[in-house]
Amino acid sequence: MTRYKAPLEDMRFLLEHCAAEHRTEHNLTQLGLDGEEASFILSQAAHFVEYELAPINRACDELGCRFEDGKVFLAEPMKKAYSHYAEAGWMGLSMPERWGGQGASSQLSACAGEMVTSAHHAFSMIPALNMSAIKALLKFGSEDLKCQYLPNMISGKWLGCMALTEAHCGSDLGLIRTSAEAVGDDVYVIKGNKIFISAGAHDAAENIIHLVLARIKGAPAGVKGLSLFLVPEQLPDDNAPNNVDCIGIEEKMGIHSNPTCSIRYENSRGFLVGEPHKGIKAMFIMMNEMRMGTATQGVGLSEVSYQHSLGYASERRQGRSLKGTVDLAHEADSLLVHADIRRMLLTQRAFAEGGRALSQFCSQLLDSIDADEAGQCASPHASLFLDDNKLLLNFLTPIAKAFCTETGLESSSLAIQVLGGHGYIRESGVEQLYRDGRISTLYEGTTGIQSLDLLGRKVLGTQAKSLLLFTKKIYRLCQLEKDNQAILHMVKPMVGYAKEWPELTQTVAIKGMKDHEEVGAAAYDYLMYSGYVSLGYFWLTMAVNASKLLAEQPHTQPNNGFSRGFLTSKVRTASFYFSRILPRAESHRQALLSGSENLSL
Amino acid sequence: MTRYKAPLEDMRFLLEHCAAEHRTEHNLTQLGLDGEEASFILSQAAHFVEYELAPINRACDELGCRFEDGKVFLAEPMKKAYSHYAEAGWMGLSMPERWGGQGASSQLSACAGEMVTSAHHAFSMIPALNMSAIKALLKFGSEDLKCQYLPNMISGKWLGCMALTEAHCGSDLGLIRTSAEAVGDDVYVIKGNKIFISAGAHDAAENIIHLVLARIKGAPAGVKGLSLFLVPEQLPDDNAPNNVDCIGIEEKMGIHSNPTCSIRYENSRGFLVGEPHKGIKAMFIMMNEMRMGTATQGVGLSEVSYQHSLGYASERRQGRSLKGTVDLAHEADSLLVHADIRRMLLTQRAFAEGGRALSQFCSQLLDSIDADEAGQCASPHASLFLDDNKLLLNFLTPIAKAFCTETGLESSSLAIQVLGGHGYIRESGVEQLYRDGRISTLYEGTTGIQSLDLLGRKVLGTQAKSLLLFTKKIYRLCQLEKDNQAILHMVKPMVGYAKEWPELTQTVAIKGMKDHEEVGAAAYDYLMYSGYVSLGYFWLTMAVNASKLLAEQPHTQPNNGFSRGFLTSKVRTASFYFSRILPRAESHRQALLSGSENLSL
Repeated sequence: MTRYKAPLEDMRFLLEHCAAEHRTEHNLTQLGLDGEEASFILSQAAHFVEYELAPINRACDELGCRFEDGKVFLAEPMKKAYSHYAEAGWMGLSMPERWGGQGASSQLSACAGEMVTSAHHAFSMIPALNMSAIKALLKFGSEDLKCQYLPNMISGKWLGCMALTEAHCGSDLGLIRTSAEAVGDDVYVIKGNKIFISAGAHDAAENIIHLVLARIKGAPAGVKGLSLFLVPEQLPDDNAPNNVDCIGIEEKMGIHSNPTCSIRYENSRGFLVGEPHKGIKAMFIMMNEMRMGTATQGVGLSEVSYQHSLGYASERRQGRSLKGTVDLAHEADSLLVHADIRRMLLTQRAFAEGGRALSQFCSQLLDSIDADEAGQCASPHASLFLDDNKLLLNFLTPIAKAFCTETGLESSSLAIQVLGGHGYIRESGVEQLYRDGRISTLYEGTTGIQSLDLLGRKVLGTQAKSLLLFTKKIYRLCQLEKDNQAILHMVKPMVGYAKEWPELTQTVAIKGMKDHEEVGAAAYDYLMYSGYVSLGYFWLTMAVNASKLLAEQPHTQPNNGFSRGFLTSKVRTASFYFSRILPRAESHRQALLSGSENLSL
Repeated sequence: MTRYKAPLEDMRFLLEHCAAEHRTEHNLTQLGLDGEEASFILSQAAHFVEYELAPINRACDELGCRFEDGKVFLAEPMKKAYSHYAEAGWMGLSMPERWGGQGASSQLSACAGEMVTSAHHAFSMIPALNMSAIKALLKFGSEDLKCQYLPNMISGKWLGCMALTEAHCGSDLGLIRTSAEAVGDDVYVIKGNKIFISAGAHDAAENIIHLVLARIKGAPAGVKGLSLFLVPEQLPDDNAPNNVDCIGIEEKMGIHSNPTCSIRYENSRGFLVGEPHKGIKAMFIMMNEMRMGTATQGVGLSEVSYQHSLGYASERRQGRSLKGTVDLAHEADSLLVHADIRRMLLTQRAFAEGGRALSQFCSQLLDSIDADEAGQCASPHASLFLDDNKLLLNFLTPIAKAFCTETGLESSSLAIQVLGGHGYIRESGVEQLYRDGRISTLYEGTTGIQSLDLLGRKVLGTQAKSLLLFTKKIYRLCQLEKDNQAILHMVKPMVGYAKEWPELTQTVAIKGMKDHEEVGAAAYDYLMYSGYVSLGYFWLTMAVNASKLLAEQPHTQPNNGFSRGFLTSKVRTASFYFSRILPRAESHRQALLSGSENLSL
């Protein structure tokens, strides 16, 4: 079985060389670390993930969780790995130093997070949820709440979770029935039942901090009447239990070692986070954080799927090359001689590295926004960037979440396919990748929800300003590289897409004015189209940078820290992407323009 | 949870009205039954499947199989259902009356088989493998072997299985090491180890009849030295054990209740089936039967995925229609108001019904071929049909196997998506659909193997004669319907594909002459292109027939046995397929024409 290796060279390539046009001085500062420090941190993360997390992934899947007398017990290896993770301080990597964190960038944190998710999806959800809860508190929590909760959450002693879904409402949060009644300043009594609460109860943390969406008595119906509350499992003042009870855990397709809890709040004490009835706004801080985290899970899934497939294909011998016998010393050639095996491997790789570039770009935007908002660059020029960066990040978030997870599923299914019958056997580990990963297009907003968010809110809702910011970037890059013969076959189609994308958006917008249904009917294919075209842009960016580095190198050895093999493969995978994957955009274009009429049952 | 209902109306529609141009008198005779009898048999099958098989599917998944002291025990509900299946005579439905069967057509048998696979994939493999073994014996077994084995296999008292794979060879059977040494006329001693033998050992049958691929001592290397042997678990003469030992069963992603066995043959007695060293030919009788059976599994998977999704979407209320509130009596609308939900449902339906039409057409060809070969039509005209029908069936088999299973996986993944988080929970039943179905693109030849078979052997190997037979059918239908305004939007693109398909084949053929690798590089996308275009043809056929039936009907009630709703939906789903699914062919066309250069790692 293949051992997971963190893709450090590719991460360094992205951190140091890609999307350089967007890197302004202040976000280099915000990175908070020079290249050497960043490399050191990533290699430490890689070591932890490769030696502690990846090896226990399968055992945790088999062991699952135990629910007994209202208590949830994690598998022992999971618990142990978590305590090491927290002790080593990984939870606070990108958290503010003021509260005990290390203040590293979101970019760096996303790299470390991707490694964790590749190695152990079920584990990765624990820090991801906690960090999202921390972000909401940082933004909307009162100073009191921050002082009381942040240090322990950032150290990982306590863990945050998100409690939104109820049995009758998932995507439609407006239907939430959990109630809140004021008993003091910003203190409420919470009553209701939630389901699907990942890591909502377990024995790896001393306290679980629930961020609960509920309706204050008398508040308006729908999402506009929801408020966000911090509801600790135990009240920190006196460690008294707070009537937060786990009443069951789900049997699931995968992520067996992460408990999916049903929670009952029976007159539990809750503390308001943010303003009353503005819970959705605070929730979206967590949600957007989780959406980017989930995008990273998709990328990590593609990466680990690729690694397993490549490992197996390199060792397994079956059949002969169509070019004629290659390896006479063996009775069969390696699977790698078969073009269709390489097609599958390159597909996984194109999604892993392309998705990583998209996800890193989003993290970079986030770092810039954070830096700007922290007032490190108070010039009017910076705040101009700030608005654009926010628009861009909002635009790219649903694309990254949905597209990277959908392609992650494809990559993991391809891993089963590359391994053939052996991929269907549990021992191989790849079927677990699909089962665990399958949750990623569902939670934190399904692909359908992301699609409506993208087309309805992020594109049409901004009069396509967000989209035009992005297509302008594509144009600019194509303009810069218009004489670069080596990659002209990628530049030309990108110029076409930069023109076509706004045009088809306009067509849908006009139809949608007459009938909103047209927007819903186009949304999914619009998102997938956007995903393929966006990845085209990032692949072009990477091909440009890799070719430049190759040109700088003498022919025999690397002089810029990247191996020739890495850079050559980068350019090849870009070509593969343009020839074999990007054409899928066309089928989505036709589908999205076909209108709502054909969607009658 | 939705209860599976056999799609009887659609099956009857296909049996009675579709592909009528191919129905000659002799295959109506071969059907062996008039329409009423066929309907009766199908309704009986539906009853068994709906009330006996579907309800135990999930329990069997949880119970799995037990391996103890070299013996394999099926789950009790599985064993009981199997005994009812055999007692009711379903095993012999399409088997010759001479050996105790009922002599029904392959078409009818495929309908019943699809129901079984929709209801219980793991169960369906047992009769499918047995029937395939029977087919090989019917074609290549000696009269003695037939007399000794067929009656008990056709009654289901004994069960056949296929033993091909060894640990070091799956797709590449030429590497087989299991040996055979002659000890008498057509009697051999078999020695070797096989893996991945579905239902290779269990307690539901009194005897398991292994059809084993092995190499006679001194035979040439590679596939040309392989012979097929019948190796019974117990020798029928005296019920003596035959040293056929199960040494373990696999832990798998799904099909938990069907044991995947490792078998050791330790000087077991084996009886030659067919000629020495011609084992591959005999094996392909089984294999082609299994490939069509697996195609049917893909269709059944799409069907049951659709039913689960439709059931959930009809009941679950979440969000509001973009057209404005539809159902004021409830706090939310049914999921069906959302265009993207309908897109997913229609995708599943398009694959289920389109795949069924393809699969039924293949069965019809098989029935014609069988009838011709049985000499029921000895005219020279009939034998002309015979060759064409064989070419067509050979051509469509890899398309049906790979395309219907790939789309089956998509349909089952969409079922999880329609159910959202609830689809990820085991209780919903839909995650099991994906886990069970995931084997279907792997066994009986992976999608990659089918692709090479299609493009290399079936198309280029016949100088595209097979393809041209099929595109001629497309032309003919388009010509007939060229003035049918109601479906002109489907006729026009099909004319284009009938022209484009041979053209792009020629392009690949020319490239492939210079470099065989080009064939391997194009194969997968060629197969998927072929699948989408083939289904386009079958959807056009169905739309033509449904429109005609609609035109015959008075507006208020059916007069031809089909509900107006069924026929209207048929035409709508055809339109959906042409607008939203068929455009995928274009992305495959571009990818397959992109050459082998871009497949370097």
